Amino acid sequence: MNKLIAEGKTKQIFTTENENVVKIHYTNHTTALNGKREEDIDEKGSLNNRISSLIFTYLAKNGVSTCFLEKLSENEQLDKKLTMIPLEVVVRNFASGSFQRKFNTEYLAPLANPVQEFFMKSDELDDPFMNNDQIKALNIVDDDQIKTMHAMALKINDLLSDLFYKANIMLVDFKVEFGVDSDGNIVLGDEISPDSCRLVDKSTKKSLDKDVFRKNLGNLVDGYKTVLARLEAEAK
Amino acid sequence: MNKLIAEGKTKQIFTTENENVVKIHYTNHTTALNGKREEDIDEKGSLNNRISSLIFTYLAKNGVSTCFLEKLSENEQLDKKLTMIPLEVVVRNFASGSFQRKFNTEYLAPLANPVQEFFMKSDELDDPFMNNDQIKALNIVDDDQIKTMHAMALKINDLLSDLFYKANIMLVDFKVEFGVDSDGNIVLGDEISPDSCRLVDKSTKKSLDKDVFRKNLGNLVDGYKTVLARLEAEAK
Repeated sequence: MNKLIAEGKTKQIFTTENENVVKIHYTNHTTALNGKREEDIDEKGSLNNRISSLIFTYLAKNGVSTCFLEKLSENEQLDKKLTMIPLEVVVRNFASGSFQRKFNTEYLAPLANPVQEFFMKSDELDDPFMNNDQIKALNIVDDDQIKTMHAMALKINDLLSDLFYKANIMLVDFKVEFGVDSDGNIVLGDEISPDSCRLVDKSTKKSLDKDVFRKNLGNLVDGYKTVLARLEAEAK
Repeated sequence: MNKLIAEGKTKQIFTTENENVVKIHYTNHTTALNGKREEDIDEKGSLNNRISSLIFTYLAKNGVSTCFLEKLSENEQLDKKLTMIPLEVVVRNFASGSFQRKFNTEYLAPLANPVQEFFMKSDELDDPFMNNDQIKALNIVDDDQIKTMHAMALKINDLLSDLFYKANIMLVDFKVEFGVDSDGNIVLGDEISPDSCRLVDKSTKKSLDKDVFRKNLGNLVDGYKTVLARLEAEAK
């Protein structure tokens, strides 16, 4: 019997017979503005499951510790069970979203260096942006764990930028989350999909990610299908 | 002839016959909420000039490079001319102000480590909070300059915490600004006064700083006079 143990905005997490393994069900639920706008979009769950499985497999092959174990079905995968660190780690290569608004920069302006940003996961506090001193002072993680997360996020950015570049896609920015496994190691958790990345076609500059939903630019699923098809072609 | 070259919210800056030296005039102007509330308060200018002169002299004696040259008169001092770095550097030892609001912590809760925060000086962008990656990506300063500012701010915090502790005052937090001198060195600029620090009487927990004005708690000048008298007694 699989018992529901947690439900996020777009995923349900179930127990399995192995206490160190969880089953993730990707739903079609789509949210924006910290959940203030929401909708169910056909096929989104299965597309994200397939894309995230492909990306986590690629990262693991290239030396990144991830939670991913195997894709079970259209909408389900098995993951290592992690104790999640309550931080969102954003990596940016080009200006967009909150960075663009905050600093009044041009959309897609290239950044001189990859910019990492840590946000506390807290609906109550509206996910505040934090620096390393604040993270340590509030005892969220310690200095070594911050360094590990920074290094892992940078490596993930290098690998993904390269993968998407070959697929004729600009990796504008993305968000990852980390957790601690039963051995105490920091491991990439959650998902990497067009829900959590900004991906722009290099030639047409069209968005292929959740910005299509955020900005009401058309059918989100078309972009997700393009991303999956191009990544599958690269992965061969 | 001294020519006015810049005017801030509480200070005027004039040329002198030496092109590397400026004369600073401390006004009685008092502002809060990024300038949205303002008032002139008798004696405030001279008190801040005396307090900041005393603190910069103390810091210089203890190895911190500062802009301060000499106190000229009640409201005036001579400073090295600096090219200011457009960042405000805040150091916090106890939770208060924006930190307390952002993370919903208790007023004056001790922080596990001193927390440094960098803010871009920009009225237009509402002084956004920045991390090191953002500062580098926007080319405000480079990595070495960030490290120097961090190290100097930490040293200033150690020295000031000690000075105020002896004066029976908690150094809750403070804001400093840095500039580059004609030799290319990073130097402490601006002022350190109850306008730019949160100072709380250790015994009574009464505010002795601009929070008295921000929160309408009474006459700001009484607290500033207490701070000056106690620092002068310590400096002897």
